[in-house]
Amino acid sequence: MGMPLELNTMIVTKGREQREQSNNSFKLEKEGYRLYPLDIPIEVRKTKEADTSGTAVIKKLEWENQSTVITYELVSLNSTN
Amino acid sequence: MGMPLELNTMIVTKGREQREQSNNSFKLEKEGYRLYPLDIPIEVRKTKEADTSGTAVIKKLEWENQSTVITYELVSLNSTN
Amino acid sequence: MGMPLELNTMIVTKGREQREQSNNSFKLEKEGYRLYPLDIPIEVRKTKEADTSGTAVIKKLEWENQSTVITYELVSLNSTN
Amino acid sequence: MGMPLELNTMIVTKGREQREQSNNSFKLEKEGYRLYPLDIPIEVRKTKEADTSGTAVIKKLEWENQSTVITYELVSLNSTN
Repeated sequence: MGMPLELNTMIVTKGREQREQSNNSFKLEKEGYRLYPLDIPIEVRKTKEADTSGTAVIKKLEWENQSTVITYELVSLNSTN
Repeated sequence: MGMPLELNTMIVTKGREQREQSNNSFKLEKEGYRLYPLDIPIEVRKTKEADTSGTAVIKKLEWENQSTVITYELVSLNSTN
Repeated sequence: MGMPLELNTMIVTKGREQREQSNNSFKLEKEGYRLYPLDIPIEVRKTKEADTSGTAVIKKLEWENQSTVITYELVSLNSTN
Repeated sequence: MGMPLELNTMIVTKGREQREQSNNSFKLEKEGYRLYPLDIPIEVRKTKEADTSGTAVIKKLEWENQSTVITYELVSLNSTN
């Protein structure tokens, strides 16, 4: 009688994010039910080991069929130039 | 840097559930971000104080704009006749 | 960068609860990090498949070393006589 | 039938942390039930608006009486010299 979930404190994209029509909005699907904070800035990384690639705010989270879809807006980008 | 949420162990409908096209599927919107378990049977009540009106399994949960929408299937009904 | 946890909506004792000194208070250790609601009545069962054996209110939850300890008070018992 | 909690992605000390006997271990009490990830590195700040003061790993979390106590180990410090 339990539901496994994973508490996440950052967005790890693995390059699988999909850009939405609007400006800086992205959608990302992850396996399993994952709990992310909405409406507050969190780190975005390409991989767990990578440096931060920016900061985003998650605007929407969906759980269905053992899968999580988040929609987030990039609020800042770390440039390395 | 925190996100308020509410941990819920049952579905309290307050009569606001909406029947979906398919058989026993309902959609319910609640204020705020609420954490419900998916894919396991939980109690359904009309109000907090009411007796159980049945058992349901939540198939989908969506968080957006400080609001939670769950889609659930009734798996059993408590009849009182 | 994720922490696995399990959302629980009832207490399944498997007979491993330990009675505390005070009246109706019990302590139970479970593997892994488990999220239970505190301060609200939840069902107690001996096994997942068993009937409800009573209702309890969890007063304390501790997570450490991949393990969860809850301290709960039995508020009602289902008798079968 | 819900339990309010707050999902936290970083430790904000407000200078109220208490050093434990062992090296780099600290204890911090916060109001309300707060969900933090254990066993993974998270940011430490003195205030929400402050820069990161270091990185810590939470080893223990306790919920009781509408209050949260975390025990964490500092794993790195941001020096500004």
